[in-house]
Amino acid sequence: MGAGIVATHHFSPTRFYSTIGSHDPQVRIGDGHTVIVDCIDAWGQDARVRKVHNTGPNPMSGPIFVEGARPGDVLSVEWLRITPSREIGFTRNSLAPNTVDPEYAAQLPNRAAKGRWRVADGRCVIQSPKTRLGKLALPIAPFCGCFGVAPAGGEAISTATSGRFGGNMDYNGFQAGSTVYLPVSVDGALFHLGDGHARQGDGEMSGTGIEISVQAEVRLSVVKDWQIGWPRGEDADYIFTVGNARPLDQAVQHCTTEMSTWLIERHGLDHYAVGLLMGQAVKYDLGNMYDPAYTMVCKMPKAILATL
Amino acid sequence: MGAGIVATHHFSPTRFYSTIGSHDPQVRIGDGHTVIVDCIDAWGQDARVRKVHNTGPNPMSGPIFVEGARPGDVLSVEWLRITPSREIGFTRNSLAPNTVDPEYAAQLPNRAAKGRWRVADGRCVIQSPKTRLGKLALPIAPFCGCFGVAPAGGEAISTATSGRFGGNMDYNGFQAGSTVYLPVSVDGALFHLGDGHARQGDGEMSGTGIEISVQAEVRLSVVKDWQIGWPRGEDADYIFTVGNARPLDQAVQHCTTEMSTWLIERHGLDHYAVGLLMGQAVKYDLGNMYDPAYTMVCKMPKAILATL
Amino acid sequence: MGAGIVATHHFSPTRFYSTIGSHDPQVRIGDGHTVIVDCIDAWGQDARVRKVHNTGPNPMSGPIFVEGARPGDVLSVEWLRITPSREIGFTRNSLAPNTVDPEYAAQLPNRAAKGRWRVADGRCVIQSPKTRLGKLALPIAPFCGCFGVAPAGGEAISTATSGRFGGNMDYNGFQAGSTVYLPVSVDGALFHLGDGHARQGDGEMSGTGIEISVQAEVRLSVVKDWQIGWPRGEDADYIFTVGNARPLDQAVQHCTTEMSTWLIERHGLDHYAVGLLMGQAVKYDLGNMYDPAYTMVCKMPKAILATL
Amino acid sequence: MGAGIVATHHFSPTRFYSTIGSHDPQVRIGDGHTVIVDCIDAWGQDARVRKVHNTGPNPMSGPIFVEGARPGDVLSVEWLRITPSREIGFTRNSLAPNTVDPEYAAQLPNRAAKGRWRVADGRCVIQSPKTRLGKLALPIAPFCGCFGVAPAGGEAISTATSGRFGGNMDYNGFQAGSTVYLPVSVDGALFHLGDGHARQGDGEMSGTGIEISVQAEVRLSVVKDWQIGWPRGEDADYIFTVGNARPLDQAVQHCTTEMSTWLIERHGLDHYAVGLLMGQAVKYDLGNMYDPAYTMVCKMPKAILATL
Repeated sequence: MGAGIVATHHFSPTRFYSTIGSHDPQVRIGDGHTVIVDCIDAWGQDARVRKVHNTGPNPMSGPIFVEGARPGDVLSVEWLRITPSREIGFTRNSLAPNTVDPEYAAQLPNRAAKGRWRVADGRCVIQSPKTRLGKLALPIAPFCGCFGVAPAGGEAISTATSGRFGGNMDYNGFQAGSTVYLPVSVDGALFHLGDGHARQGDGEMSGTGIEISVQAEVRLSVVKDWQIGWPRGEDADYIFTVGNARPLDQAVQHCTTEMSTWLIERHGLDHYAVGLLMGQAVKYDLGNMYDPAYTMVCKMPKAILATL
Repeated sequence: MGAGIVATHHFSPTRFYSTIGSHDPQVRIGDGHTVIVDCIDAWGQDARVRKVHNTGPNPMSGPIFVEGARPGDVLSVEWLRITPSREIGFTRNSLAPNTVDPEYAAQLPNRAAKGRWRVADGRCVIQSPKTRLGKLALPIAPFCGCFGVAPAGGEAISTATSGRFGGNMDYNGFQAGSTVYLPVSVDGALFHLGDGHARQGDGEMSGTGIEISVQAEVRLSVVKDWQIGWPRGEDADYIFTVGNARPLDQAVQHCTTEMSTWLIERHGLDHYAVGLLMGQAVKYDLGNMYDPAYTMVCKMPKAILATL
Repeated sequence: MGAGIVATHHFSPTRFYSTIGSHDPQVRIGDGHTVIVDCIDAWGQDARVRKVHNTGPNPMSGPIFVEGARPGDVLSVEWLRITPSREIGFTRNSLAPNTVDPEYAAQLPNRAAKGRWRVADGRCVIQSPKTRLGKLALPIAPFCGCFGVAPAGGEAISTATSGRFGGNMDYNGFQAGSTVYLPVSVDGALFHLGDGHARQGDGEMSGTGIEISVQAEVRLSVVKDWQIGWPRGEDADYIFTVGNARPLDQAVQHCTTEMSTWLIERHGLDHYAVGLLMGQAVKYDLGNMYDPAYTMVCKMPKAILATL
Repeated sequence: MGAGIVATHHFSPTRFYSTIGSHDPQVRIGDGHTVIVDCIDAWGQDARVRKVHNTGPNPMSGPIFVEGARPGDVLSVEWLRITPSREIGFTRNSLAPNTVDPEYAAQLPNRAAKGRWRVADGRCVIQSPKTRLGKLALPIAPFCGCFGVAPAGGEAISTATSGRFGGNMDYNGFQAGSTVYLPVSVDGALFHLGDGHARQGDGEMSGTGIEISVQAEVRLSVVKDWQIGWPRGEDADYIFTVGNARPLDQAVQHCTTEMSTWLIERHGLDHYAVGLLMGQAVKYDLGNMYDPAYTMVCKMPKAILATL
């Protein structure tokens, strides 16, 4: 295909991985192409709520081989559209034990039962269990909880967790309209995605979003001559960096360091300028405090950067 | 004074404390009264930038004795107005070593030098040092970084840190229009306040906001028959709870537990309802990741609670 | 009293403090004097198991004013003898919720009940509850879980926790024969002690040692011209430093930094020598992982230092 | 080979892995057989200090397929002998930045240079750099810093880090005479080992032991009908459990939970007995506080367990 021609592929996998690693590519696309991907939910259930994968959490669609991507490049992931592919989503129903005080954790009920939500007409409505919330309705706000590229060094990492390569970050800011930049470690980048959430609070404090199968439309492009250490991204209002680690302190250290590095490289700032700017204008989001690695996101308003 | 009569006091202290504790009250006010308080800055400098206190950080105006407050009550602190009382503010100029990756910390410059900002006309404008930021202007957004009531058990706690009683939380959400609820441990509550910030980014990552002397107008009221474990509060959009601890994980555990407790008591929810609601709708802010105790804030949108 | 004359005092207090702070001295002794101190147990019970203090944990005997001690000095605390003053000790009976995995914490039984141990003839023998341990006997190994000097800056800190000044460190290495060095912040140092333990495992994982009233014989001496940042100490085999903080990582950072500083000052080492030596020869003990601040201890063998 | 016949194999690999995963077995041995394994050092240097692997840290000898091992079994690893296979070892020379206070980290020198030690006659003697330590000699105490079995779920984990499967635990207690039990996740267990250390202080605070190629003699046996969650082990004096995580708090939670579980299963204890016993008799070692996952070890004296 010639330069400037952007193709759209449709990828509806029948085989899924519960690690992100250097698996055989399931589909190959050109640099800058768009691909529409069907993703089953975190428990391996498809758009008809049939269990089609049962050997691990967050089964991934992929890997997608992006032509031209080489180790040391960056993969740009533009989330063009993320649409639930069914009208039923599931949640855990109580706070996870690690999210509350240890003495309080003993009061939490058994976490085996699942909640059921109807997802339609732009809203997520509780169907069960019956609680004082009744049929509480919350706006739909879909994203993929887990996505990433094959990690460096031959690693294959469980989709339960995350790292520099992305992974199970469960950050509710990765919605349509955002772009994420991931450090490429292998030829073709090998992009994986899945774990659709119809919506999720900050931190994934119950251990789930509203888990649902989704169809995602994503444009994948290779960026040359750009070194990044952790996932970066942007949306209409912010540029942002992502740190994945425990405890949260270390996740903050990672994303703060990555933002400092980015600001220095992007705007030619020195450390004093970084300190003045970040000290008085930075924002943070709590991605998740549930997965083996927690996620914190460091954000700088584009409106401020535009004045530099 | 009769019921319904609200008095306004003006308190301009000449003596300051660098601990929050059961010090002799400097002023006494009635329950529900308003008091206008002059606060010097974190380094002990007043509205004319004269050093008037030099025996510790964040010198407090107070304590203010609120009549009728008894151990086990709650003190309601309504921030009616927080106005800088001079046009010059100071900051640290580089990220603090603990906020970045340990290997990166060695690159940070000497932190002794201070930045100087002009605070006027609704804006904070960098005066020095000279960097590529030039005369960057950020909107003013004033709050008190440190305030609290005398802790329980006869403790006197440095204004460097924070706890259940409040203290040096350095959370940029405590602006005019917000109300904070603090657990009373001693007769009169003994409210202290100070450490004005003209604005501050999330997390206080450089170790300071734009430090400035302020005049705060605050209404202090006693709430009977309400047990709280950590600071709570509300503003136009959210109810919120505050956790102060290290690491951030524990701060999150504290404020999440406190929010769960509040939702159960306020709306009669059970743990399933709490999990469904918080799991899919809660938000978190990073108050500070610099002080000895870090601060995380858990927020629930009032718009959602209004539907229950 | 003339130089070289060492007096022994006997201090049997009737008033106790549950903070360590600048309280009125209960006794004054000369520099280098020995004092025999009666200490009630952590729950305020004396040698006859009568409750004599009920307004806080770990009631302290003291403060003891040591003549000649000035801010910036070091107080040397030689533990000459620590003897239980009754034959009954008490423990919590199950692991504390924060010491196990959050999911496991829900299985732990109610922690209200206390265990009862007979402490005599050099042994601690379980009396109740009845378990498969039967009348398990463990060797006696007494120490004071909580002791310290008045903190800087006018703070009064709950005896639940610890800091640079000492406090509730609950480290089982503070036995007779050890010497602890504490940084003096106020005139007279104002030494407090109490919280006797007949013995304790590493980490105080059940939240208690075998809590017992004790009589401690301690020599208190002033060391001039020595700056220390955290408690230091020594016994027959090691010099050691103490870090008190959460998480354990930070406690390790504190005591490791303090040991590095000490080795540099004591042996004229540079950072390479410190790294070579500590990297290959340092040891660590877990003091406690239960109190608000955790305690880690960094140890260097005297036998190795003797070869330098 | 018939039952009761124990064979000794010799495995001197030419290919190495820097992940622990389900790689093609390099050697197959019977259940209970002994294998003598040559291991290159952490930087890929063999017994003649020739670089023979350069694509990652801690290159592993293996995997070794143990006949009869099935998922759900336990692999018993008896360390019969660990002998350095050359007379030169290398170290990092300064404390790692994450092991000291963030403000102190900036003082640490460049960490690129390596120290050189002569390892012979039972001693490790500094050859360079020149410092006030001179030719400090420390006793040899060899162990493998990194070993483990293939993890579950198809993961391949970098030998920089560790987990339930073992990995880069860098614990100086894994010396000859100790036995380690690892949870088997794949057919044949797939045991990997390497990263020889001639000795190491607690915590691996400089980021290395005295790195050296070794020859290890190890007996590998399958234990049926035993469920374990984390590595367990024993030596002459203790049974122990291993937790690998960040922060140290979580590593302690893992190994404490695992020890509690073991004591309940092994001695029929209830939670009260566990609390009484561990609370007053448990010990902890700091394995490492340098690798991506830190390691803590929980130990119970066999002498005490023998009285039950």
